[in-house]
This record gives sequence, structure tokens and C-alpha cells, in this order.
Amino acid sequence: MSSVLIRGGTVVNADRAFRADVLCIDGKIAEVGDNLAAPAGAQVVDAGGQYVMPGGIDPHTHMQLPFMGTVTMDDFYSGTAAGLAGGTTTIIDFVIPSPKQPLMDAYRTWREWAEKSAADYSFHVAVTWWDESVHRDMGTLVQDEGVNSFKHFMAYKNAIMCDDETLVNSFKRALELGAMPTVHAENGELVYLLQADMKAKGILGPEGHPLSRPPAVEAEAAQRAIAIANVLNVPIYVVHVSCAESAEAIARARAAGQRVYGEVLAGHLTVDDSVYRNPDFAYAAGHVMSPPFRNKTNQDALWHGLQAGHLHTTATDHCTFCAAQKAAGKDDFSKIPNGCGGVEERLAVIWDEGVNTGRLTPSEFVAITSANAAKLFNIYPRKGCVVAGADADLVVWDPAGTKTLSVKTQKSLGDFNIFEGRTVTGVPSHTLSQGKVVYANGDLRAERGVGKYVKRPPFGPQ
Amino acid sequence: MSSVLIRGGTVVNADRAFRADVLCIDGKIAEVGDNLAAPAGAQVVDAGGQYVMPGGIDPHTHMQLPFMGTVTMDDFYSGTAAGLAGGTTTIIDFVIPSPKQPLMDAYRTWREWAEKSAADYSFHVAVTWWDESVHRDMGTLVQDEGVNSFKHFMAYKNAIMCDDETLVNSFKRALELGAMPTVHAENGELVYLLQADMKAKGILGPEGHPLSRPPAVEAEAAQRAIAIANVLNVPIYVVHVSCAESAEAIARARAAGQRVYGEVLAGHLTVDDSVYRNPDFAYAAGHVMSPPFRNKTNQDALWHGLQAGHLHTTATDHCTFCAAQKAAGKDDFSKIPNGCGGVEERLAVIWDEGVNTGRLTPSEFVAITSANAAKLFNIYPRKGCVVAGADADLVVWDPAGTKTLSVKTQKSLGDFNIFEGRTVTGVPSHTLSQGKVVYANGDLRAERGVGKYVKRPPFGPQ
Amino acid sequence: MSSVLIRGGTVVNADRAFRADVLCIDGKIAEVGDNLAAPAGAQVVDAGGQYVMPGGIDPHTHMQLPFMGTVTMDDFYSGTAAGLAGGTTTIIDFVIPSPKQPLMDAYRTWREWAEKSAADYSFHVAVTWWDESVHRDMGTLVQDEGVNSFKHFMAYKNAIMCDDETLVNSFKRALELGAMPTVHAENGELVYLLQADMKAKGILGPEGHPLSRPPAVEAEAAQRAIAIANVLNVPIYVVHVSCAESAEAIARARAAGQRVYGEVLAGHLTVDDSVYRNPDFAYAAGHVMSPPFRNKTNQDALWHGLQAGHLHTTATDHCTFCAAQKAAGKDDFSKIPNGCGGVEERLAVIWDEGVNTGRLTPSEFVAITSANAAKLFNIYPRKGCVVAGADADLVVWDPAGTKTLSVKTQKSLGDFNIFEGRTVTGVPSHTLSQGKVVYANGDLRAERGVGKYVKRPPFGPQ
Amino acid sequence: MSSVLIRGGTVVNADRAFRADVLCIDGKIAEVGDNLAAPAGAQVVDAGGQYVMPGGIDPHTHMQLPFMGTVTMDDFYSGTAAGLAGGTTTIIDFVIPSPKQPLMDAYRTWREWAEKSAADYSFHVAVTWWDESVHRDMGTLVQDEGVNSFKHFMAYKNAIMCDDETLVNSFKRALELGAMPTVHAENGELVYLLQADMKAKGILGPEGHPLSRPPAVEAEAAQRAIAIANVLNVPIYVVHVSCAESAEAIARARAAGQRVYGEVLAGHLTVDDSVYRNPDFAYAAGHVMSPPFRNKTNQDALWHGLQAGHLHTTATDHCTFCAAQKAAGKDDFSKIPNGCGGVEERLAVIWDEGVNTGRLTPSEFVAITSANAAKLFNIYPRKGCVVAGADADLVVWDPAGTKTLSVKTQKSLGDFNIFEGRTVTGVPSHTLSQGKVVYANGDLRAERGVGKYVKRPPFGPQ
Ligand SMILES: [Zn+2]
Ligand SMILES: [Zn+2]
Ligand SMILES: [Zn+2]
Ligand SMILES: [Zn+2]
Ligand SMILES: [Zn+2]
Ligand SMILES: [Zn+2]
Ligand SMILES: [Zn+2]
Ligand SMILES: [Zn+2]
Repeated sequence: MSSVLIRGGTVVNADRAFRADVLCIDGKIAEVGDNLAAPAGAQVVDAGGQYVMPGGIDPHTHMQLPFMGTVTMDDFYSGTAAGLAGGTTTIIDFVIPSPKQPLMDAYRTWREWAEKSAADYSFHVAVTWWDESVHRDMGTLVQDEGVNSFKHFMAYKNAIMCDDETLVNSFKRALELGAMPTVHAENGELVYLLQADMKAKGILGPEGHPLSRPPAVEAEAAQRAIAIANVLNVPIYVVHVSCAESAEAIARARAAGQRVYGEVLAGHLTVDDSVYRNPDFAYAAGHVMSPPFRNKTNQDALWHGLQAGHLHTTATDHCTFCAAQKAAGKDDFSKIPNGCGGVEERLAVIWDEGVNTGRLTPSEFVAITSANAAKLFNIYPRKGCVVAGADADLVVWDPAGTKTLSVKTQKSLGDFNIFEGRTVTGVPSHTLSQGKVVYANGDLRAERGVGKYVKRPPFGPQ
Repeated sequence: MSSVLIRGGTVVNADRAFRADVLCIDGKIAEVGDNLAAPAGAQVVDAGGQYVMPGGIDPHTHMQLPFMGTVTMDDFYSGTAAGLAGGTTTIIDFVIPSPKQPLMDAYRTWREWAEKSAADYSFHVAVTWWDESVHRDMGTLVQDEGVNSFKHFMAYKNAIMCDDETLVNSFKRALELGAMPTVHAENGELVYLLQADMKAKGILGPEGHPLSRPPAVEAEAAQRAIAIANVLNVPIYVVHVSCAESAEAIARARAAGQRVYGEVLAGHLTVDDSVYRNPDFAYAAGHVMSPPFRNKTNQDALWHGLQAGHLHTTATDHCTFCAAQKAAGKDDFSKIPNGCGGVEERLAVIWDEGVNTGRLTPSEFVAITSANAAKLFNIYPRKGCVVAGADADLVVWDPAGTKTLSVKTQKSLGDFNIFEGRTVTGVPSHTLSQGKVVYANGDLRAERGVGKYVKRPPFGPQ
Repeated sequence: MSSVLIRGGTVVNADRAFRADVLCIDGKIAEVGDNLAAPAGAQVVDAGGQYVMPGGIDPHTHMQLPFMGTVTMDDFYSGTAAGLAGGTTTIIDFVIPSPKQPLMDAYRTWREWAEKSAADYSFHVAVTWWDESVHRDMGTLVQDEGVNSFKHFMAYKNAIMCDDETLVNSFKRALELGAMPTVHAENGELVYLLQADMKAKGILGPEGHPLSRPPAVEAEAAQRAIAIANVLNVPIYVVHVSCAESAEAIARARAAGQRVYGEVLAGHLTVDDSVYRNPDFAYAAGHVMSPPFRNKTNQDALWHGLQAGHLHTTATDHCTFCAAQKAAGKDDFSKIPNGCGGVEERLAVIWDEGVNTGRLTPSEFVAITSANAAKLFNIYPRKGCVVAGADADLVVWDPAGTKTLSVKTQKSLGDFNIFEGRTVTGVPSHTLSQGKVVYANGDLRAERGVGKYVKRPPFGPQ
Repeated sequence: MSSVLIRGGTVVNADRAFRADVLCIDGKIAEVGDNLAAPAGAQVVDAGGQYVMPGGIDPHTHMQLPFMGTVTMDDFYSGTAAGLAGGTTTIIDFVIPSPKQPLMDAYRTWREWAEKSAADYSFHVAVTWWDESVHRDMGTLVQDEGVNSFKHFMAYKNAIMCDDETLVNSFKRALELGAMPTVHAENGELVYLLQADMKAKGILGPEGHPLSRPPAVEAEAAQRAIAIANVLNVPIYVVHVSCAESAEAIARARAAGQRVYGEVLAGHLTVDDSVYRNPDFAYAAGHVMSPPFRNKTNQDALWHGLQAGHLHTTATDHCTFCAAQKAAGKDDFSKIPNGCGGVEERLAVIWDEGVNTGRLTPSEFVAITSANAAKLFNIYPRKGCVVAGADADLVVWDPAGTKTLSVKTQKSLGDFNIFEGRTVTGVPSHTLSQGKVVYANGDLRAERGVGKYVKRPPFGPQ
């Protein structure tokens, strides 16, 4: 029996905060209460003056993503370990079949890759094409494999982009299965045209990236996906909402009674689009991801959406291409592989800009970093709540601790940090995964392969 | 030691539903868990096939309201008892000082009247005028008396209507004190003019009531109160939101990051404005309340607001004038005393129209009937949550039970029922107040004077 | 020299109304002024108590439309003649190439068909597919043939539906050429799915038509087209806006500074969706057009859009399939050919519901029935204005005249009238086309083949 | 007989632009046409390469405004003369009765002051208080004096602020009379509180001015006035709309079918709020007016409103307090007299930022600087249109001419210029007032006392 007692802290759940000790035994939270006694042999963590929160859930990462014969710098081990160092104890990654690749093949490949994970993980599966086998495999995934969400890319023409016919078919199938459709919302046709336009104008550097993906391109796709979901009467989750127009489209649909959910990335909340105008290619390219970073007006809209409740979760889209990989687009921004890190910094950055500024209460912080994702992807309260019986995935949060974020000190194997140089107040002092202290005051004790695959049941007929 | 064990039900909280027994000892919830053993002498309630939910909180009632030398039919005893029969275990009523009456005087009067309550109760205090004594008494009420919310009437010209100067002063004071300002939002000047207009046109019957209080009159006041709160940086709670325009004003403000909250009445959700065109004066007058009932478009907007989360609580504005009192407006609709009942029917009506129709999940039902009010008025999780340590105010809900609502069978002493003849599916089988079964399958055991005043602490500096 | 003097009327232009005589000589308006003398031999029309307005422009008709080896009942002669009887003196019809058919071929075919017209006419040309020849032919049409607008069908999958790639290419080409892209906005993929769904549920009659084309299906496409136009910085004109959601999408885009224009059909303004529930197949099928008629809430939104100025023109989509043709969908609503008449009734119906009700002033009536279309399609003030130098296409409007609309008395050769039995107040007493009285108090003197093709120049680089 | 022939220009009206000569005889436009012959003795103005437009109408000026025993620098002579130098040929100024002052007294006083005007002028009359005499005088003003618009100040507490009761009474009276109510929309109660707050915080300089009048303060009042107008069914005109929120409120109301009109000041379109942070008191104070200048987001919203058509007119609120007068607020920003100039620069600034940037066409420029004001205040086409019969108030506009705006070269007697140093392209070469050339290429020939009072008839029962 392994046990840890977290003593003297303030437990923060999405609904409230209260003084309590938390006892973890054999990977589960055994008790939450006042003055708990430490079992014999229990490790005691002093949480005095600190918050005890459910570990972060990052519902959007790409570990070990294949790219032209190489892969991203972070594999499932280093990526999940970096998450643990930042207080994130669960990731939901993506299985992305190539067009025509059977979904089950891709799924099995990713499952194998993920076995090295240091923390718990789960998978959304992308639907990138359509035929009867896809229809059937979606059923298998939901019914046998614990997948309850499917991803659709509305961008990336001539690659993994879904057309409307596939969207409609897949959303309809998701509804039958009690699964949640999700979308990367950008109109791929417009991106394609704008990329060509920029190049025709001689704009070849990273500054062309945001110019080819303006907010209107994102909002169009978001509205389209929402409209399709509305007509089919299926809920929908929009990943990485980055602009005011998309957030407004979501709010509008919700105000009409539709079940629409929105995810925001830590980067979109805190990094603005001036980075693309930096003359240093490596710097600008290091920030290339899609949708791109936006200006302050859009950032404000994202914060407001989280405050108002029409945006629900925060994530990172963690996807660490290195400088050499980014250099593939040295002479053509459209060839820069898209992706940035962040799984390690998300909680700290959002606490610093969200809670310290008065935008969010600690309970709202827990909602948007952990509890809401757990609810939307149906693993609550196993994850996302400090309550007896839940998985002992916890973060002890020191609101007075400070840290300067940097590629030099990060645990992620990426060679770039979009939050470089930012000093945050509010950091994890301890992270517990599966009831074990895996991070303590800078000391990361992540263990390869102990992370478990988390099955997520379908939504009931309700 | 008195104990009750609720066995075999599904506990529903705002965040989730789960199978568990609930043990109540000495007025508190002692334990929530699987297969709990009944203490010696415990009363056991079989909740098999039923939901166990936090008792309803009705944040808007007027029991024993004085009116021209008489009072409403329900006093604090009969009104709270009726609530218990319907699963509502806490009310927040209103202290309404006359203009120039010291707030503390009015407060003490209402406290005395409320001593006969059968269930727990609390008070919002209305600010109907302004001078230094009001400023001071607000402080006393917050700091010494557990009042954390103040009400402002923007209608009722020449009576209790607040002008903008008073609104501004009171909102500012509330901010200093950590209290929540609330408003009855109707532009009293416009109501006054429209009433005169209707009468000038010879419209004297109850059909003139809604014509003199159209949605635009409400929306104007809601927007004004929200704007004032915005400028002063204080949260605001709009009582009895009845129309789409008001709901949209709230949603807009929230989407700009403002902390605005909206309450909806069970009547506004389910009764439409055709009632005012009924030729029977008693019937039409029985529905006269402000704001009036609205058409289906507005009802839809209210449901959507609850689903989307920009409306938060449900209430009744329970205020039971009898036919004789209503007859004061026999020849002039503007003299019909405003008020309808509902404290007893709210939960059943909202379950039937909300959960049975698929609009709301059971957890969302708990949020809007109980948990959200507890959070907004700072008595959560003492009220509004089924969790160890909370007050044992519970309702055991039989989703298969049916009942036909009627003045003939209601426990309220009012002589009219706005839900008359409606058959609902989903009714309380048992209500527990302070850990005692006070209602069981039609048998109401409410006890006069056992209800306790609930102090509500101010909001912290956060 | 042929001349007509219209004496004693009130000239109504889009900017103002004023008492003046109008002298027409040789097909042009020679003078507008007080007390004009009649030239020798001039025909004098007494317009006392009447309005003299620019003849209606119907920017959306389908005369002589081919359909499965037959054609619509009205050819260019009978259709334009019917228009003259109703005060409409110009139509803009559509050239619709089959997929892969060269645009110039289709254009020449339609030009030939139109030679029998009794009134002036022009053509939008549809882009139903894409390759280099389409790109080139668009140039020829704009530069040599006086076409300045191109139509895109976002519905009608497996037939003439444009995909996003074609939309993007065509909009971009239109921008280069100074031409206006227009769209039929319905998401064809969703229509296809919903038609299949309805049939799967056994809904085969005309009531399935509106169920398979709900407002959300239209709004999605409108938003998509607007977003594409926004990104490409080209103006856009949305034909037959039928619902509140589309109108709101247009208003939103305009409020962001985008140049978006909306057209409304007389039928959508005045006929509601209850017609589809009529048990008589011929009656219900007679109303089948796309988008379908909508409920009152949507009708109100269209009127409001015209009043507010975010909707600009009115049209009919005149397309007269007869009962035998409609019967093709006797057992499957999706096979009912889409189309209704109206070119003859538009002005009277809109005057009656728009001006007589106080929604619109006479000048606003002229704006939305004539002047705005002339401006948007660049033939103003040759058409759309009563001013010296303009074409003498005029209607003398008797605001006191009444008429009961009916298939029995209509000039159109269609065998159905969607306005059947409606009595309107406000009718044309005289219509002048090319300076000749072609309609006078019920007497239609339309002449086959005298109508001229109207070249519309491209929009300047401004 | 005095005559001027403007030869070779392009006439621009709100509906279109066309090549034509313009002949003016005895103060009126006699003819607009091709190749007009100059009458004997006619002055010929060569307009080759230039536009000939209706003279500007500034519907919002305060000439010769009394202030604490002094008056503004520009009286009706110098102010109207400055207007002529800039192409503005008509102003609508304001009669502002003191509380309790009879409206007719104030009206006669202002009429007398205005007799020295060099250009035509008219008056809105402010309703600053209410009793039966005000009700009666409104009737006299409309029926006998040619006043068809009344102004209401919702700010300036303890001075000329209207409460809701007066607003309601006056709007209702305006409706009876066929007159247009207008409002200065700021919530005076909030301004009062925020001014006190700023001072309590030690913010005494001009930077406190915008802080005490944020957009929310304006938007609240705009919404309130619009709601009141909606309930009373009277049109409404909102003066100096300065922020996005107000513009949105107007757009929303219009989209619901309400007749709401908005005015924008040249300063609000082009000067931003950074001016208030200038450390030079004279500079910052020189920009103090209400509502204050706003940031770029708000400016964009105003331009978009003009483009979309939910904002209608442009004005200046010309009110020239000198540095000595501004110094009254040296130690307390709330005592700085509110007002800035602009009557002379409005056209050039709006042409430069509006037409040269592609935001507006020349016809739209004419609409928002002249024609729309003429229509809304019922003097069209006598003013606001280049058409035979209209007043010969014209501006010949040189789109290639440039000028650097400066207090050093302005004709206004003010000692400050909010457009100081701005070089504009597009300037008047000639201005004609009453058919005479009163300004030609820098040479101002304004004549004292020749301006005529313009009666504006009430709106018909329509
Ligand atoms: Zn993505
Ligand atoms: Zn991703
Ligand atoms: Zn109330
Ligand atoms: Zn109440
Ligand atoms: Zn169509
Ligand atoms: Zn058509
Ligand atoms: Zn003002
Ligand atoms: Zn002013």
C-alpha cells in the first residue's frame, strides 16, 4: 500500500474551495477532510498556504507526431513528463489516420507509441476520410476502445482536410454512438488561396502565416461546423478557438439553446501576433501554429468567453517541432511545420494572467484547466475533481511561488518556448500522478511507461 | 440524536449524478456513500429509482407581504410549508422599507414576522430611498446581520421606485461591503405613462397590464442597471428576467467579461400571456404580476438562457393575493395587486418542462433550482449540495411520479394556482429539512417556527 | 417621334416624392417638371391622385427555364408581359450553364431565347463549374457582353452546386473584373442529408420540403459566402434571403464594414410556411420553391431588414412550373420542381403589405422595388429613377385601386398563384415601357420581341 | 439677376455622380445639364477635374454659446463664415433654454443672435425642463416657427439634464407634432459619480475627463433613449455617437424595425483619446468635449456604421472655447468648458479619411455630409441635392488639392485646432451660398447678415 497525505492546504474544486487534507492511497483519493491522520508509512506533503487542485487535463496535445519521416521532439514519455512538471496529469492526444488509412490501424499505432507515457492519457480519433469502414471503425472505437470523441480538420487541403460530406456523415455517426464531434475550424480552401496570394505578392517569410489565416477564415469554419451540428442535433466541441468572431459564433449558438463547447489554448490567451513580425526566422517560425496568435482584441474575447462560460476548456496543442524541422519553411512560410509547445507551462501562465489579474477565481481556474474537460469527455469525477474515490492526480499549487519560463529550464525536449522569459507567480510545488509524488519543487520523477490509457465511455441516451 | 438514512437513490449534484446513500444526523449530512449502515433508531427512506437532490432554494419570495392594511394569504409559516411540500427547503424573502423608513426598522419587523417559518429563510433588503442612514444601515446589515444582497425596484413610481442617483449610491456601497446588488428591472416612468395611455384608450381590464409593461420597458431597465454596475465594477443580479431582450442584454454584458446574473421565474418559463385575454376577471387578475407573462418566443429565450448559462437561478416571486384583494383593480388594472404563487410547484413544473423535454440534465436542474442560488448568495455548500457537512435539506425526487397541480390540493393558502390543471411527471416523494422528513408522499409535517434565519456572509475581497 | 405626357401625378423617386408631370419622348424621359405642355400628337395620361414611379426591376426571374425536356410555362414573352401588367419593366434573368458547358454557349442560348421579350431584360450568368475556360469566359462576358454579375448555387448537390473551391475562384475572378458575385445560399450537403432523413422517416409529401431546408441550412451558406467575400475583399449579393438568421449574418457583416447586399422575394415577405401542410398536393406543391416559405418571425425579420437597410432589393424568383410538372414529385417531395410565380404581383403585394401598413414610405418602396437593384447592378439612373434622360420605363400607381389576385385573371401563363385570393389596395393603372403605354387599366398591350437586352457595365476601379 | 455657371465638373449627389454643368440664378439652381450656356454677365467657375456637390450641412453647432458671462469665440458670423471656407453652407444650431426659462424666450434670443450669420441656419430647440408652457411652446415652435426637432441632454446633472419623466413627456409631444426628438446620450448620474471618484483619487487634470465618461456611460443613455422612443413609437436621432457600444445599440434597434438615426462628429472619426494624456494642459484641455475622443476600435465602429448605414450624418458640435476659458478647469478637469471647433475642417477631414481610403464613395460622402441631414430634418431637396430648383448652396471640390490644417490659417476665431498639422488631400476650391461664390481658392468673401433662417416643416402624418 502506498499512501500520501497532503496536509494543510486549501482544496479547490470547480464548485468551491475549502480547507482540507487529502489522503491518497493506492492511486486513488481515499479521503478529503479535516485533520486526517497519516497512515503508517505515508508520505506527507505540507500544503500550508497552498492550493490542492485536480491535476490539469490537457485535452489537446500531439506527442510524437510523425512529420516527413521524423517526429516531433517530445514523444509520449517526454511530453507527459513535461506535463507532470507543470501540474498536468492527463493528456488527450490525437490519432490521425492518413487518408484511406483504416482508423483501427492508426489507432493501434498511436496506442503503441503511447505506451511509454509517464502520465495517464487518452485519444481523440480523427476522421480524415469516409467510407463504410470508417463508419464501422467509429463504432468499434466507441464501443470497445473507450473513444468518445472524433476530430475533424476543416483545414489542410490536399492532406487531412474533411469536406462537408465527410463532416456530415461523421457527425451523424457520432450522434448515433453518443460521441462528441470536434473540429479544427479553419476554411482550408481560403487558407490555400491566401497562401498562394501571399506568395504571389512575394511574402514568403513567417509574417505570411497569420496573413493567410485571418480570423474570418477561422470563424467561417466554426460557424459551418456549428450549423451542421445544429441541423443534426449533435453537440460540438471547437478546438483552439483563437478569435473573437469564433467565440461570438459559439455564444450565439449557445444562446439559441445549442450545445456548443469551446477550447482555448494558453498561447492564444497570452501571446500576440507581433511575434510573426520578428525578423529572426527561428523566433517567428517557432511561433508558427494554426490558428496563429492574434491581437489583443481577440485575446480579450477569449478571456471573456472563459469568464462568461461560453468557452470551456484550455489546452495547448503541444506539438514541438525543432528549429531544423521549422527550417523546412525557410523560404516558404507555408512549409513551416505547424506547432508549439506548452503542456508544461499552461497552468502557470493561465494562473498568472487569469487568477492574479482577477479575471478568474481559483475555482474557475480549476474548471477551465481540468474539471470541464473531464466533464465534456466523460471522465469526471474520476479526473477533474478532488473527491474521495477519484484518481489521485493532483497538483499542490503555490500561489506565491515564482518562476521564469525558459527553454533552458523546461522539461520538454522542444528547443523553443513561446513563453520565453515570462516570470509567473503561481507554480506547482508538487504533482501527484496515480497517487505518487512525481514532481516536487523542481525535482521531476516521471517514470516511463507507467501512464495508463484512459477509456472514456460514450454519452448516455440521456 | 436524530438520524435519517436515504437509501438506494441517485444523488444529483450540480456537477454530477451518482448512486449513493445519504445519512443525515442532527440536521446535517453526515455521510454520502455506498451501502451506508443505518444507525440505531434511524429512519430509513427508500429512494430506489429516485433522485436525491439538494432541497430547492427559492431566492425570490414575498411571504406575509403587507398590502393596504391586509397581507398576502401566505405568511411565513404557510408559505415555507408549501415550499417544503414541493421540495423547496430555503427561501430568500425581501425586507422592503417604505420610503424614509430606516432599513434596520424594516429589517427587524420582517425578522419578527419570519419567526413562524417552517423552513430556513434569509432576506434580501430593499433600498428604496437614500440618505446617510441608509448607507450606515447597509453596513450594519452586512457586517452584523448576515445580509449580502440588496434589492432595487426600478419600477413602481411614486412608491418604492429608486431613481438613478439612489441606484448609483447603493451599488457603490454594496461594492464596498462585498454585497450583491439586485434589481427589479422595469422602467417605472414608462410603465406610468403606458398605464395612463391604456386608460385613456379605455383599456381598463387586466389585458391592459401586459400592454403597459412590454419587453422593451423591462429591457431598458435591465440594460441601465447592468451599465451602472459595469461602470462601478460591481456584480449584479437581475431578478425575474422575463423576456428575450433582457436575457440578451445579460448575455452581451457577460460576453464582455462583466459579472451579471439572471433569475427566471417558473411562471415566466411556462405560462404565456394569453391568460390576460381571458374574459374572466378573476382568472386574468390572478395572473397579474410584474413583469407579466410573455409569449412563446420570450419563453424560449429564457430556457435557452438557462441552458447556455447566462441565466442562473429560478425562483417564483411567490406573493399570494386573494381574489378579494385582486378585486381592488376590478375597474382599473393598474390597481390590481401584483403577485402570483408558485413556491410549491416550481420544482415540479421546471422538471417537467425542463428535464422531461431534454432541455436540462438532472444536474443542470439542481444547478438552476438550488446550487447556483446558494453560490451567488454565498451559502454554498451549506445549502445547494449533497455533501457531507452540509445542511440536511434534501428532496427525494420521484421521476415517475405524477401530480395534477391545483388550487384544490395545494398547501399554499392562496386561492389561485397559475399552474391549475397541469399534470406533471416528476414530483418529490420526500422532503427533508434540517435533517427531518417534513414531507412524505403527500403527508406534510411542517412545524411552525422551526425554520432558522440563514446568515449569508459578504463576498471576500477575493 | 412618339410622346406621352403623364400629367398631374406625384413623382416618387428613392430620395423623395414631388408633384410633377413627366414627358416621355422616343423612349426616354424628356422632362420632369411642373405644368409641362403636351407636344403635338402626344398621348396624355392623367395621373391625378396617383404616383408616378420608375418601373419595377425584378432582379431574379427564370423565364423559359428548361426542365427535363420541357420548360416553365412562362417564356420570355409571356413572362415579361406579365411583369408589365404588374408595373415591372425590367427583369434580370439567369443564364445557367450545365456543368462542363461553356459559359459562352449557355449565354448565347439564353440570349436567343430572350429575343421574344416584351420588356427590357438582362442576365446574371451562373458559374456552376470551374476551369480556365470559365475564367476566360467570365472576362468576355464582362468586357464584351455587359454582364456584371455572376451567380453561384450553394445547393443542388450532384447538379449545379458549386463547391468552395469554385466559389473562391469565381469570386476572385469577379473582383478582378469589377463584377458582383451573387449566391443562392443553402448548404447543399445538408439539404441532401435531410432529404434522405425525411424519406427514411416516411415523410414523402411536400411537408418534407421545408423540413429538409430549415433556416440554419440557409444561414450557414450565407455566412460562408459572406466570409469568403470578406477574405477576398469583394462585395457580395445574397439572393432570396428568407430567414432571420441570414438577415442577421448580413447585418453583422455590414456592421463590420463589409459590402454585403440582400434580396428578398415578395413571396417570402407575405406567404408563410403553413402552405406546406395543406393536404392538397397541388396546393402545397405549387408553393415548393427554395428556400421555402418561413414563419412569421422570419417574415418580420425580412421586413425589418428592408426598413433598416441591410436588405436592399425585392424580387420574385419567378419560375412557373405547372401542375403536371410539379406532379413529378407526387411520391417524393425532393422531385417536385422548385419554383413559383410572382413577377406580376410583386409590386402590388409589397405596396399593400409594406406601404399601406406604414412599414415603408413610397420612396422606400421605389428603392426596394427598383432603384436599389438598378444601383447594385449598375444601370442607374437609366433604370430606377424618374429623371430626364432615363429610359421611359414607368408605372403610374393608383394607391386607391384594388384588385383580387388570382390565377384566373393573371397574365402569366402559370397555372398557380401563390397570392391567390388576396385583395390588394394599390395597383398600377398604367405601365410605360420604352416610352410607350403597354398597360392601361387592365388592358395589356405587350408586344413580342420589342424588349431590349440591357448591357450592364462593370464597376469601376473606383 | 445674378448668375454663376459651374462648368465642366462632375456633379455628385447622394444617389449618383455624373458629368454636368450647373447654372445658378438668383440664389437657386436653375439648371443641371450638359454644355449649359452661360447667361450674359454670368460668373463662370471652371470645375474641370473637380466635383460639384451640395454644400455641407452641419446639423450640430454651437455658435456664440453663452458661458459664465462670456461666449464662445465664434459668433454666428465668424462661425458660419468658417463653415463656408470649408464648404459647409448650412448649420443647424441649438437653442438651449435655462431650466425654467420659457422656450419661446430662449428661441427669440438665439434667433436674434443668429441674424449676423453669413450662411443659412436653422435651430434645434432643447427641452431642459417640463411644464405645460413647454408643451405649448413646442407646439408654437413646430407650427409657427419651422422647428421640427427638439434636443434633450441626458448628461450635465444639476444643469440642463433631462430626467426620464421629461424625456417621456417631450418625446410624446414631439410625436404628436411630427417633430424629431434628439438626445445627447450620456448618463449624467454616472458622469457625476465618476467625476467625484476621479477627483477623490487625485486625478484632476484633463486625463480625468475621458475616465469619467467611458463608453458604457454613453451607451446606457443611448439605449435608454432608444427604448423610450421605441415604446412611444417615435423616431429618434442620437447626436454625436462616439463609441462602438452606442452604434451597436442603434444597429440593434434598427434591425428590429425601429426608426433610429445616428450622427457622428468629424473629431470622433479621426482624433483618438491619446490627446488627453498629453502633458500640456492647453493641448489636452483644447480637446475636452463630451463625449470625449475614443480609441481606434471605437473609431472603426463609427466608420463602419456610416458605411453600413446605421449611422447617418456627420457634424462637428463646433463650440470654440478659448484657452483662457478652458483654463477655468486648470485644477479640476470637470470645470473645463466642453467644446471643440471643426465646422471649417469637417468636409476635408472626412473626405481624406473616408473617400481617399476607399471607405466611402463620393456619393456616400455627400449623403453623410449633406443629403441625409437634409432628409432627416426635412429640408431636402432644397438643401442637400444638386438639382434644378434647389438652393444654390454648392461646393466645388478639388480632389487633388491639399491643405495643412492649422489654427494659424483657419478662418474660425477659435485659438485651437483639433486637426492641427494634418495635411489633407481633397479641399473645396469654391463655395457657393445662395448662388454666390463666397469662397474661392482661399479667398473668403463671407458677408455678415446675409444668412437666412431656414424653416423646417414638421413630418407629415405619413
Ligand atoms: Zn488544430
Ligand atoms: Zn492540434
Ligand atoms: Zn419584482
Ligand atoms: Zn418580487
Ligand atoms: Zn435560388
Ligand atoms: Zn432563382
Ligand atoms: Zn452634446
Ligand atoms: Zn452639442
